[in-house]
Amino acid sequence: MKIIKGSITAPQGFLAQGVEAAIKKEDKKDLTIIYSNHKCAAAGVFTTNKVRAACIDINRSHLEDGRAQAIVANSGNANACTGQQGWKDTLSMARLTAEYLNISPDDVLVASTGVIGHAMPMRRVEKGIRDAAANLSEHGGENAARAIMTTDLVSKEIAVEIEIGGRPVRIGAIAKGSGMIHPNMATMLCFITTDADISSPCLEEMLRYSCDRSFNMISVDRDTSTNDMVLLLANGLAGNRQIKNCQGEDYQVFREALDFVSISLAKMVTRDGEGATRLVEVEVINAENYDAARTIARSITSSNLTKAAIFGEDANWGRILAAAGYSGADFDPQQVDIYLGSEKMAENGMGLIFNEDLARQELQKDPVVIKVDMKSGPFKATAWGCDLSYEYVRINAAYRT
Amino acid sequence: MKIIKGSITAPQGFLAQGVEAAIKKEDKKDLTIIYSNHKCAAAGVFTTNKVRAACIDINRSHLEDGRAQAIVANSGNANACTGQQGWKDTLSMARLTAEYLNISPDDVLVASTGVIGHAMPMRRVEKGIRDAAANLSEHGGENAARAIMTTDLVSKEIAVEIEIGGRPVRIGAIAKGSGMIHPNMATMLCFITTDADISSPCLEEMLRYSCDRSFNMISVDRDTSTNDMVLLLANGLAGNRQIKNCQGEDYQVFREALDFVSISLAKMVTRDGEGATRLVEVEVINAENYDAARTIARSITSSNLTKAAIFGEDANWGRILAAAGYSGADFDPQQVDIYLGSEKMAENGMGLIFNEDLARQELQKDPVVIKVDMKSGPFKATAWGCDLSYEYVRINAAYRT
Repeated sequence: MKIIKGSITAPQGFLAQGVEAAIKKEDKKDLTIIYSNHKCAAAGVFTTNKVRAACIDINRSHLEDGRAQAIVANSGNANACTGQQGWKDTLSMARLTAEYLNISPDDVLVASTGVIGHAMPMRRVEKGIRDAAANLSEHGGENAARAIMTTDLVSKEIAVEIEIGGRPVRIGAIAKGSGMIHPNMATMLCFITTDADISSPCLEEMLRYSCDRSFNMISVDRDTSTNDMVLLLANGLAGNRQIKNCQGEDYQVFREALDFVSISLAKMVTRDGEGATRLVEVEVINAENYDAARTIARSITSSNLTKAAIFGEDANWGRILAAAGYSGADFDPQQVDIYLGSEKMAENGMGLIFNEDLARQELQKDPVVIKVDMKSGPFKATAWGCDLSYEYVRINAAYRT
Repeated sequence: MKIIKGSITAPQGFLAQGVEAAIKKEDKKDLTIIYSNHKCAAAGVFTTNKVRAACIDINRSHLEDGRAQAIVANSGNANACTGQQGWKDTLSMARLTAEYLNISPDDVLVASTGVIGHAMPMRRVEKGIRDAAANLSEHGGENAARAIMTTDLVSKEIAVEIEIGGRPVRIGAIAKGSGMIHPNMATMLCFITTDADISSPCLEEMLRYSCDRSFNMISVDRDTSTNDMVLLLANGLAGNRQIKNCQGEDYQVFREALDFVSISLAKMVTRDGEGATRLVEVEVINAENYDAARTIARSITSSNLTKAAIFGEDANWGRILAAAGYSGADFDPQQVDIYLGSEKMAENGMGLIFNEDLARQELQKDPVVIKVDMKSGPFKATAWGCDLSYEYVRINAAYRT
């Protein structure tokens, strides 16, 4: 596998564009279209929040046949908690995009991110859709990535190339996450394209697996958004023999590349977490089962006390152990060793005498790497989070208007 | 029921003292003894963290017979993650206290709060126990409350008097919570005394009920401690007819008073939460069942985004609804109304046009009162939290040493 230039337009047959539609107050891009000139096998994973934007339910229904051809996404307005009108506006976004692209509305997926509870400015949105559709380009990936940003400080893109049955296959992706210009709730969007030929059932299974090990393992503030989604479009133009056996070797090769793409973007989102000064990687090893490893890793990356201690460069291993303890996973605390980088801080659940200067140096690194050895089985899991800084409070205390 | 002066020494037969044993670095009280001159029916509720201090398990065993006569508590050292030595030291604290008070070690309960993973300075602890035991007094409640404080800014005490079968019965209590001088993890301790005559099974049942509606409904930072405990001692000196029927009228009267005491202290602990500038009260009403009401109320008080918005006086009802949505409770978002004080912000899951100035005034109040009307049943629950401020980050980023 090699990392290549570009993002969602790196795979064959994909065009994209991001434009200014004046949905945001500032003069910034805020409307994206991603389009494949061939119909794609498509899969999506969506927020589990009971309070969901209309686009979540509409996308689920559009994905029932496992096919799609375009994505339209806007930033600056989440179109959530907007009732019947919000539902109608989301359907209009799909219909308008379909008209300009001359495809079926059922083959358009819709994503929105931004302030909650405000009506969509549909006249501007329509103008934006027309503008983006008219300027779709093989070089539009970067604009597309910019036009889905909200309080993100950097845009997030990646593309890789692998070989399947002797044919080069590409995967491209963009994501946004962890804040809004009108802070409301952290919304995470990720769009992945590939020219691989894959059956819909295989696509869905591997996207779910990959998300569970990437986007579902990151946390900035434990607040699950109303609009989170990851979409994956596969148009088959690479001409590989179709991947339709979820146990086969081709499936493995592709999924490993997909995992790499998902984890890379998940880490970019977390590193760009609101107010974050460092990425934190927590690896739980030798656990009795995978669920326990996962639960403990996530609990540690989500602990406010641990996050604040990391911001303060305080090697406070007691908070790490306590966060494991209240995670809900069953384990024996008196078996647990804790490492900060290469420094061992605790053994068998008890503190060791460690070098405070070396520990502080580990806490100044980016990422900070914490390893928790359960010494009770063969399973492991990794989670990513960030530190909790004054800046997080400032960003989220800011008034909406 | 009337509120009376004093705290744990207000009920008949209880003596207490808090002294300086030099366990803390500063010249501050750090060792407390609470003693009843009659053996008590006793009950306790303890942290659910898998990583527990030895005192938690030792108290459970000492409470097996439902009886106790004294509590010894220290601040400045949590004696958690200290292995075999920590276990021995906890047993020594019970034994030494028992010797000086001439009672059985099994009738002594032990509590510790402070830094984790450090050995107890047992010579100092013994001197403190001797000193406190020699100076037990009816007026020692305030010193006792001070000697369990860590980063608490104020001490927390309350006492009430009710009448049961024509006899005055008193309940007194002290608590500490929400920070440490060596910040490590928020430890919550609460000791409650009463001269009521109550059977052990009734005492345990009502303490569990009361804690579920008070201490288990507060959150400062979602981090569950290794040392949390609530202890209740009832020595029977009020001479009321014994409460031994958990359905009876006397039980109800006493439990209501106990609930008042528990909720009052729980609110004091939350208001004194690390860095908190305001108490936040979230009432979920008209829910389909009690568990849903409770889960939603707790999810809202625990949301970092909601807490930061309150600190910033931002009437960001979307975050409140989103926190309800990811709580795990099942409900229909399109039924939900949200009030901030007397201002209705959202109806049927959609935002209303509201007066931003009035909303901001509600957010400047202490407590901030949020009401969530589920409009789907007869159940309700109240949870308490606090805002998330720069000061929280500062306190918890500070270096241990």
